[in-house]
This record gives sequence, structure tokens and C-alpha cells, in this order.
Amino acid sequence: MRPSGRTASQIRPVTFTRQFTCHAEGSVLVEFGNTKVICTASVEEGVPRFMKGKGEGWITAEYSMLPRATHTRSGREAARGKQGGRTLEIQRLIARSLRAAVDLKLLGENTITVDCDVIQADGGTRTASISGACVALVDAINHMRGKGILKTNPLKHMIAAVSVGVVNGEPVADLEYTEDSIAETDMNVVMTETGQFIEVQGTAEGEPFSMEEMMTMLELAKQGLYEVFTQQQLALNASTAK
Amino acid sequence: MRPSGRTASQIRPVTFTRQFTCHAEGSVLVEFGNTKVICTASVEEGVPRFMKGKGEGWITAEYSMLPRATHTRSGREAARGKQGGRTLEIQRLIARSLRAAVDLKLLGENTITVDCDVIQADGGTRTASISGACVALVDAINHMRGKGILKTNPLKHMIAAVSVGVVNGEPVADLEYTEDSIAETDMNVVMTETGQFIEVQGTAEGEPFSMEEMMTMLELAKQGLYEVFTQQQLALNASTAK
Amino acid sequence: MRPSGRTASQIRPVTFTRQFTCHAEGSVLVEFGNTKVICTASVEEGVPRFMKGKGEGWITAEYSMLPRATHTRSGREAARGKQGGRTLEIQRLIARSLRAAVDLKLLGENTITVDCDVIQADGGTRTASISGACVALVDAINHMRGKGILKTNPLKHMIAAVSVGVVNGEPVADLEYTEDSIAETDMNVVMTETGQFIEVQGTAEGEPFSMEEMMTMLELAKQGLYEVFTQQQLALNASTAK
Amino acid sequence: MRPSGRTASQIRPVTFTRQFTCHAEGSVLVEFGNTKVICTASVEEGVPRFMKGKGEGWITAEYSMLPRATHTRSGREAARGKQGGRTLEIQRLIARSLRAAVDLKLLGENTITVDCDVIQADGGTRTASISGACVALVDAINHMRGKGILKTNPLKHMIAAVSVGVVNGEPVADLEYTEDSIAETDMNVVMTETGQFIEVQGTAEGEPFSMEEMMTMLELAKQGLYEVFTQQQLALNASTAK
Amino acid sequence: MRPSGRTASQIRPVTFTRQFTCHAEGSVLVEFGNTKVICTASVEEGVPRFMKGKGEGWITAEYSMLPRATHTRSGREAARGKQGGRTLEIQRLIARSLRAAVDLKLLGENTITVDCDVIQADGGTRTASISGACVALVDAINHMRGKGILKTNPLKHMIAAVSVGVVNGEPVADLEYTEDSIAETDMNVVMTETGQFIEVQGTAEGEPFSMEEMMTMLELAKQGLYEVFTQQQLALNASTAK
Amino acid sequence: MRPSGRTASQIRPVTFTRQFTCHAEGSVLVEFGNTKVICTASVEEGVPRFMKGKGEGWITAEYSMLPRATHTRSGREAARGKQGGRTLEIQRLIARSLRAAVDLKLLGENTITVDCDVIQADGGTRTASISGACVALVDAINHMRGKGILKTNPLKHMIAAVSVGVVNGEPVADLEYTEDSIAETDMNVVMTETGQFIEVQGTAEGEPFSMEEMMTMLELAKQGLYEVFTQQQLALNASTAK
Repeated sequence: MRPSGRTASQIRPVTFTRQFTCHAEGSVLVEFGNTKVICTASVEEGVPRFMKGKGEGWITAEYSMLPRATHTRSGREAARGKQGGRTLEIQRLIARSLRAAVDLKLLGENTITVDCDVIQADGGTRTASISGACVALVDAINHMRGKGILKTNPLKHMIAAVSVGVVNGEPVADLEYTEDSIAETDMNVVMTETGQFIEVQGTAEGEPFSMEEMMTMLELAKQGLYEVFTQQQLALNASTAK
Repeated sequence: MRPSGRTASQIRPVTFTRQFTCHAEGSVLVEFGNTKVICTASVEEGVPRFMKGKGEGWITAEYSMLPRATHTRSGREAARGKQGGRTLEIQRLIARSLRAAVDLKLLGENTITVDCDVIQADGGTRTASISGACVALVDAINHMRGKGILKTNPLKHMIAAVSVGVVNGEPVADLEYTEDSIAETDMNVVMTETGQFIEVQGTAEGEPFSMEEMMTMLELAKQGLYEVFTQQQLALNASTAK
Repeated sequence: MRPSGRTASQIRPVTFTRQFTCHAEGSVLVEFGNTKVICTASVEEGVPRFMKGKGEGWITAEYSMLPRATHTRSGREAARGKQGGRTLEIQRLIARSLRAAVDLKLLGENTITVDCDVIQADGGTRTASISGACVALVDAINHMRGKGILKTNPLKHMIAAVSVGVVNGEPVADLEYTEDSIAETDMNVVMTETGQFIEVQGTAEGEPFSMEEMMTMLELAKQGLYEVFTQQQLALNASTAK
Repeated sequence: MRPSGRTASQIRPVTFTRQFTCHAEGSVLVEFGNTKVICTASVEEGVPRFMKGKGEGWITAEYSMLPRATHTRSGREAARGKQGGRTLEIQRLIARSLRAAVDLKLLGENTITVDCDVIQADGGTRTASISGACVALVDAINHMRGKGILKTNPLKHMIAAVSVGVVNGEPVADLEYTEDSIAETDMNVVMTETGQFIEVQGTAEGEPFSMEEMMTMLELAKQGLYEVFTQQQLALNASTAK
Repeated sequence: MRPSGRTASQIRPVTFTRQFTCHAEGSVLVEFGNTKVICTASVEEGVPRFMKGKGEGWITAEYSMLPRATHTRSGREAARGKQGGRTLEIQRLIARSLRAAVDLKLLGENTITVDCDVIQADGGTRTASISGACVALVDAINHMRGKGILKTNPLKHMIAAVSVGVVNGEPVADLEYTEDSIAETDMNVVMTETGQFIEVQGTAEGEPFSMEEMMTMLELAKQGLYEVFTQQQLALNASTAK
Repeated sequence: MRPSGRTASQIRPVTFTRQFTCHAEGSVLVEFGNTKVICTASVEEGVPRFMKGKGEGWITAEYSMLPRATHTRSGREAARGKQGGRTLEIQRLIARSLRAAVDLKLLGENTITVDCDVIQADGGTRTASISGACVALVDAINHMRGKGILKTNPLKHMIAAVSVGVVNGEPVADLEYTEDSIAETDMNVVMTETGQFIEVQGTAEGEPFSMEEMMTMLELAKQGLYEVFTQQQLALNASTAK
């Protein structure tokens, strides 16, 4: 029995609120239960130095948690003077995943920066970030198309992510904090809407995991992501962003 | 005529949403029109080294803007590896103002850290932060009293802040961004609910200002703050925080 | 009775020693009693990136205290790897004040950097810095005019600054350290020689201050600054700098 | 056909040279073909602050590449003033993997720090690091047992790692640089000698990968790791370390 | 013929002004011609962590140049966020030299920090710093003896330093900037008043130097330092410091 | 009697292994007894900003020790976020010495960066680095000549370095760690193969040293370096590098 009463494959209620803030080309509040992340997509002309002259665009991401997004306050990275290893690891994952959703050649020499700022954390902040970031990215792309900056839609497919894990010996989907903190295995899965993998990152926190457990977790991820993709589509159909 | 149609002394609609996030002892979303700041107050036992052994408490503050809280994205301070001068200046102002609202001796050897994170900016983010931070502070104090950590209420008086300035030669209250960016003078005023000054910071951005203009601005601040103090009280009466 | 025997409105002896060091275009040792600051103004062709192409000049400032300018040694900021919030706040104030003294359009695309290095501190280092910096700035401008870099004098008016405060319930001008450390209110006032305000920064360190106290402090500042402007002029008349 | 003429499942020649340097409790040069990493394990009494008082030990890792370990010189992280995201990600992975090999309770309040310094890189530096680090760790543990610091062997099982990927549409094991740089999918697999997973990190660099490709890659990893575990054992049997 | 008309062995006028600033236990303005350095010695109880429990004292030093001590302004190290290699090298040299002048055992568990801040540079700032620092150190020691902190004088001998070099093929003493910038060889010599060496640092800037040139330079240093030791003694006899 | 049984003038066995790693234009493992340093020379087109437009080349160096090159592990500089004073001092010395070996005008606008990474330390790491770096530099220059980048050999003469010192009152050459840690005087001598000095850095760690001791140390250095120059030549004759 899970703390929330959910079944093993059941994910938390997922919502995407578009146009959450007013300045960004894409701005989405994503919620996976009590986990809440503001994802904004900012469009800038030009690309970083290492991409110049290729005629391609670039997508990058930054991730942060408000100091009191968590149970106890953690020090602000700006005050400590550097981003921690966990932060860098997560934002590299988000950016890689988003780039896998887009044909960078069709983006032209433009950069989209997606900021994922966690305002409330209850497990699965990185997977919520990826899922919300993709919706913000679509809004930013639509903004560019509306402005005539892009002639063709560079989006190859929607992507979304969910965490799965083994808790008390049982594989479950979309772990909340109380589950995450005692999980034997923790796995983050990023998929395309067509059911292919973008990223699979599984870690044995306690006991090693078997091939069989891995298969079950991947299956749970696939089921859970079906619901996430549905909510993304509902949000994108609902209204027209800026 | 002001861009919003407001009169010179009229401030924007002000709202305080308590319990905005779930973990912090005090958590308030403050809105001055389109300016929106999440203020959380975190209670920790003990005080910083320089305060040890005095039997007093400490209140500190940190301020930040999400990268895309503004019209164009600004670099994340955590990524640049340091907080800018403006950030440090603002968070020192917030912390000083909050400490002036509390009898630190009655706080015991406890620290309250108030984080002000601007999620959407339209002028007056530092004054909105101070006004919201005071409500979060009251919730944190009430939490401590509920837990029996504090026997006596250390709050001396509510404080709040508003910006005033001279725009196109006319003194006005609560400047929004389009006014702020062309103001000849910009002044931030922090007051107690009893009408005394905590901080007055006036800056001639273009032309120097006269004693007379200063008097008018201070008067406008006083009027505007009356409304802010009323909204603070309404919010605090409305419900009981965590 | 003040520790120095001064009356409430009496400022300490103020002197400006020009050409204090030999390399800078402007170099002034300013003394407010025992507070001593070396102010140098350095002229460089070109402007920072964010000012390029506007046909205007730029004035910036940096402030520092020698580690043992104070009663006990404070750590060197270069060794700690960053400038503290107080330093950044002060140098932003100095730079803003100086820019308000000059028509940047008449300065052409040149940058003047004013360094204020406190070699001995006894209260009021930021206001002494501003007062001395303005004299160094004039020398740098004169140097540029002598070299034919400037055709017109970009100086709009002299500026100077003084601290005022409430000590033991009584408003006084130009606080020395022993007064500053127990003041209820501390206020820094930057004015033009024509009696207009550039900056007013008042802070209640202990009790909030009233409108009446504020008026008295501003009046004391005005009186004290009359003497500072006189000494600036005497120094500038006395000799011709480099 | 692979550039080296290897079959899809064939890994490069793997060697472990123990006692490679003389000061560390464990010191191993690991080679996977042209990839060469010095792994040293250093034993220190005590544990980091966050582990104190639990009666458990700690294992941590640091990773670095000599600036010219690669085809073109990359800037030294110490000179740039921070470790990059890739470095932090890798050393977190190494440390997590090593901790999964050891019963920290049996380690007592001691810390083992494993440094992995790549002196020559040709793909797979992180997996070579993990494989070599485990041998250095065993030598450090044996050193502690010889000194009587440990009564019981805290090692639960050997671990080792190998990279697998999809290159030109074909899954292959132990990618060298020329393969790595064009791979569609890149996956790092850390396993126990008993065939369970510690970490699986798969990334679609170009096209997403299917469940079937994933299965094939995991199978190749398992085969390749059989050889690595054999070489680890041969090295550990060969001689007695310090 | 030297630019100043000096003979090869002639050093510039050297003066030591004690009690130059009022707070430090030792405060000396040292001048070697146009090179001017403020040297302050600060006494603190206790020693750094690595010296604890040895019953010995510690002497350390910090060195800095005001940004406009030189012909063109150099960036402030505090603003750049780190001390440069030249600064660190010089302050390590100053500290080592001063420690060689004192019996650290007799200093007790106290630390003396000497700050050398160059306010005007014309060559030889590091050797002037060492020479002035030793006088400030003596004043600090005398202060400690006056306070009864020290029973015995820990000073073993005075030390002083001078630069020598080869300019246009001719060995000369105490190079000023115009000589220093074209010197083939630059050598800094720190000696005791009894004519023994503390440090010798010779560098071929252009052509390598011969044993014979080295001998001549060391002889010039010895002659020049005779004058510096005399001026140190005159200053120390002249008055009693704080 | 020295710990190793060596005579006062006898240096440890010195070897240079060229092509130690495969990517760099010059790659040398230098060994002075148990001190082992990897020296790589990397060629890059262009020069740093401050050298641009002079038609000259540049040579720079970086130095580092693997954390466990020493008896106890020292913190990694990249992790601490800055290079220490000792590191900066050493790499400045290496770079200056190498530049003295080359006619920068004949190098054209190219930069050679030499990295010296100590993998095992037993005293004299900086002098071993210089000696090995010069061999790597020659290989890099030969590589450039082979590629037709250089028409003329810019090498003026080989350089090498050795440490000398006074241990237990007796001058000795090439101190190993156990000698170095108790030496009264420590001196590093960089010479050309023609017997001229590039750098002489002598430091009294305990007692000051006399002119006579200095002469003896320089003589020992000269003798020891004869052997080092011989080994450099043997290595360079033995095979042809990449």
C-alpha cells in the first residue's frame, strides 16, 4: 500500500498551467501532485560560440529549487557562489532531453533557454521539469512561428518524463518524497510520445536491481507517461499562448 | 495621466496569499499589480556565529529574481557564481527592515530566514518583497508561538514598503516598470503601521530633487502604505496559517 | 554633548589634498577628521559594452577599506574572493552620485573610474569618499580638457555628501565612529552645490524616526555641506593639478 | 565493421596495474585500450560532517582529466576556478557505484577517497575509472585490515563498468572515441560481479532508442563485464599491495 | 648613466614614517623614492589551525596595490574575485622573510598579520614592502611587550630588502620602474642586518646571467641595504610608537 | 651521510620517457628518483590577447599535483575552486624558464602550453618539471617544424633545473622529501646548457645563509645539472617523437 493510496502504476494528478507568468515566450506551471515547477522558455537570437556558423539552433536549460521548496531550507546556490553537482546534472539532463525533441537545423541560429524553478518539491522534480519544459518549449516555438521567425515546425515529437523505482521490494511509478527517500532503486525515464527512450537513468540506492525489475519499471514508466502526454495535449489544445 | 489610468497617489491592487507553498513556516505570495513575489519565512534553531551568546535572535533575508521574471532573460546568479550588487543591496534592505519590526531579544536564540523570490517583475519588487515578507514573518512567529518556542510575541509593529518617484515632473506612488524606467527620482519608503520611518532611500536618476518634491513623495508613500497595511491585516485575519 | 565637543551641526575639519599620488589623472586625499580616503580618478578611452554606440561617456567607482583602516583588522576582500554587500552598496552609491554631477553626453565615449580607498576610518567613509571623489573627478576632467579630449566642460555642478543621524535622541551632523555605532538613525545625504538632493538614504538602526527628525537631519546636512563645498572650492583654486 | 576490427561484443584489452604510485593505500593504473586512468584510494580517519555519529563510514570520489589527455587541450578546471558539470556528474557516479560495493556500517567511521585521474582518453573514461577504482578500493580495504583498522571485510561484491552504445545502427560494447563521437545512443552500465545492476545510464544522442536496442545493449554490457571482472581478479591475485 | 643620475650602487632616498595610520599596532609608510607603501602590523590572539598546540606564534602577510598605484589602472583583485599569481608570490615572500626575523617560539600563540598596500609604485614595491614591514613588525612587538603579552623580545635581527639588476649590461641597485621594465636580469635580495641572506630571487628577463654578474649584484645589494638598515634604525629611535 | 647514501653532489637517477601519452605534440615522463611528473606540450595557433600583433609567440605553463602524489592526500584545487599560491608560483617559474629557452620571435604567432602534472612527489617537483618540460617543448617544436609551421629552430639552448640546499649544515644537491623537510636552506637553480643562470631562488627556511654557502650550492647545482643535460640529450637522440 502506497502512502497516497495509489496503485503501483498510478501517477499523481498532473496539470499544466500555461501563460503562468507574463514575460516569457513560454511559461508553464507544471504540477505532479505537490511537486510544482515554473518552466519558462526564453527565445534569443543567435547561438553560443561553439555552435556558431553551423546554421543550427541551440536549446539549453537551467534548474533551481527555491531555498524553501523542501522540508528544511537549503542554502541558495547564488549565495554559495556555485551550482551544486545535483543541479548541474539535472539541468544537463533537461537540456539534452529537450534537444532530442527538436530538429535543431529547423530552429535556425536561435537559442531557446528553458528555466525550471521548483517552487515546491515532493519528489520527481526533474521529471516534472522535463514534462513541463516541453510544453513551454512548444509555446516558445509557436511564438516564433507566429512572428515568422520559423517557417517550419522544428518539433519532432513531444517528450515527457516520469520517475519509477523499487520501494519496499515493489516497483512503483511516480514516487513522492516519502517513497523516494526509502527507495531501493530510483529510475528516471524520458520518452517520446511514440514510446521510444530518450534517457534512462537507473540507480541502485540500496540493493542492486535485476533485469526483471528493470523491465517492470520501464513498463510502469510507459504507462504513467501515457497519462502525462495526454495532459500535455489537453493543455496545449485548451488555449492559445502569447 | 499614468499608463494605468491611476491617480498620482493610487497604488496598484495589492494582495497577500498565505500558505502559498506548503513546507515553510510562513509562505506568502504578494502581488502589487503584475509584480509577484513568493516570500517564505524559515525558522531555524540557533543564531549565526557573530550573534552567539547574546541571548538574542536573528532575522536575515535573501532576494532573487527568476531569470525570466523580466522582459528579457537575465543570467542566473547561481550560474554566474555570485550575487550582483543590486541583489545584495536589496536583501540587506529587506533584512534590516524586518529586524526593525521585531524585538530580537524576545525571539530567543532562533533565526528566521526570509526568502523573497520574484516570479514576475513590473516595478517595485523590493517594496513588494518587504510588504510580503512581513506577513510571512508573522506566520512564522505564530508557528513558533503555537509550538511553544516563543512565550511572548516579539513583533513590535507591522512594516510595509512602497516606491514613490517623480515621473515627468509629477510625484506618483507605486511606480510600475514603464514609469520606473523613465523616472527622474526613485524613492523607496519603509514605514511602520504607526507612520514612522524605517528606511527612506531616494535617488535622483536624472535631475536632482528638491525638498518640496521629497515632502510630496513621502506624503504619497504614507497614503499608499495605508492601503498596504489594510490588506496585510485582512490577509492575516482571513485564515490561520500552518 | 558630543564626544568631540562639537555642536550638533558642526562637522569635523575637512581637507582635500590634491595630487596626492602621481599617476592618476585626479588624485585626492580627503579627510573628515580622522577619516582618510584616497580618491583617484582614472581616464580611459571607450565605454563598457552596455554603453557602446550611444555617444555617451561613463563614470564608475570602486570602494575599499585597507584591512586595518578600522579598530580591528577585517579580512581582505581580494583574499576572500569577493566584495561584500556593504562594499558593493557603497560603490554603487558613489558612482550614481558622480554620474549625477556630469553630463555624460558631453563626456564623449570615455570612461572615468574613481577608486576610493579608505586608509583610516572613523565614521562617514562613504560620504567622505563622495566628497573627495568629486574633486578628483574635476581634476580628471580638467586633464581631459587640457589634452583636448573634451571641448566643453561636462560638469553640471559640484556634489558632496555628509552623514547625519540621531544619537541619544538628538540629531547631529557628521557622525564619528563612536557616535555612529550607537546612533538610532543613520542618514547619508548627497547634495548638489545648489542645494538639491542627489541621494537620501536614511536607516532606523534602532527606533523608527519621525518626519520631524527627518526634516531636522536634512537641515543639518545642508548646513554641514556648505562647509564641504567651500573646502572643495578652496582646494580646487589653490593649485593646478597635473 | 568497427574501426579496431573488434566484434560488436568485444571489449578492448583491459589491464590493471596495482601499486602504480607509492603513497596511496590503493593505487591502480587501469587501461581499456588507449584509455588510461590512475585510480588512487586514500584512507582517512573520520567522516564528513553529515555522516557523523552514525557509526558508518563514507566513500567519495573525484574525477579529472589531465588537460592534454584528449586530442585538443582543454582548460584546467583548477585554473578556471570550478569543476564542470560533466566532471561533477562523473565523480558522483563513481562514488555512488563504489558505495554500492561496500557495507558502510562495516567500514567504521573512516573515509575512503578515490581519485580517478585520466592521463589518456580514448572513450569510456568513466567506466574505466569505476572498474579501476574498485581494485584500488580493495587494496585500501586490505591495507586497513592489515593495520587492524577493520575486523571484517566490508566489501559486498566487486563492481565494474563498461560503456555500450548504438553506432551506425548497431549495438556495440566498449566504444572508443571515434565510435563514441558518432554514436546514436550511449549507455554506461555498472554491474556487480553477480550480474545485478548498480547503475544504468542510457542517452539518445541522436535518435531515440527502442526497448529492443536497450535489451541488446544490456546483454553486451553483461558479456563485456565478464572479461573485466576476470582481469580485476587476476590483478588482485597476482601480488600483494602495500 | 641612470635616468635619475644615480651611481650604480646608489639607492633612492629611503624614509620610514611610523604611526602613519592610527588603529594598527604598527603602521609605517615606507618610501623608496616614488615607491610608497603603507605597512600595518595587526596583532591577534591565537594562531591559524595548522599551528595550534605547538606553543608557537605565526606571522603572515598580505600585499596589494591600489588600482591606480601604477601608470595605467589595473583591475581591483577584489572585484575580479581572486588574487593574482604575482600578488600571492609577493605576499608569500614578505611573510617568509618576516618569519625569518622572529623567534616564533618567543611570540607565544599570537598572530601578527602585516598588510602591505602600495599606494604609489615606481619599481621595487616588494622590497620596499619587506623593509617597511619589518619596522611595523617591531612596533607591533613593542606594543605587545608594553601590554605585557610578551616577556622577551622575539626579534632575532632586523631584515630589509632591495632589488638589484642588470640594465643595459650594467649591474645597478634599487631599480626604478623605467629601469625595471628594460632590465636583462632582476634580482630581489632579503638580508639580515648582520649581512646573511634570507632570500635571493634572481630572474633572467632577457639574457641569462653569469656567476660574475650574480656576485656583483649581491655586492650592490649588500651596499644598498646598509643604507636601508640605517634609516630603519633612525626611524625606530626617533619616537615611540603607540 | 644522506638518507639515500648519495654523496653531497650526487643527484638521483634521472630519466626522460618521451611519447608517454599519445595526444600531445610533446609528452614526457620525467623521473628524478621517486619524483615523477608528466610534462605535455600543446601547440595552438594564435597568442593570448596581450601578445597580439607583435608577430611573436608565447609559451605558458601549468602545474598541478595529483591529490595523492604526496604522503597524505591534499585537496584537489579544482574542487576548492582556486589554485593555491604555491601552484601559481611554480607555474610562473616554469613558464618564465621555458620562455628563456626560446626566441619567441622565431616561434611566430603560436602558443605552446606545457602542463606539468606530478603523479608522484618526493621532493624537487618544480625542478623536475622544468627539466622534463624542456624535452617536451623540444618535441613540440620538432612537431611544428615537421609540419612546416616553423622554418627555423626557435630553441636558443636547452634548460634544466635542480634543487640544492643546506641540510644539517651541509650543502647537498637534489634533495629528496626527507631532506627537503628539514633543510635550513632550499634553493632552486635553473641553468642553460652553457652554464648561465636563468633563475636562482634561495630561501632560508631556518637560519640565514652566508655568501660562502651560496657559492657552494651554486657549484653543486652546476655539477648536478651536467648529468641532467646529458640525460635530456640521450632521450632526445634515442627516438623520434610524433
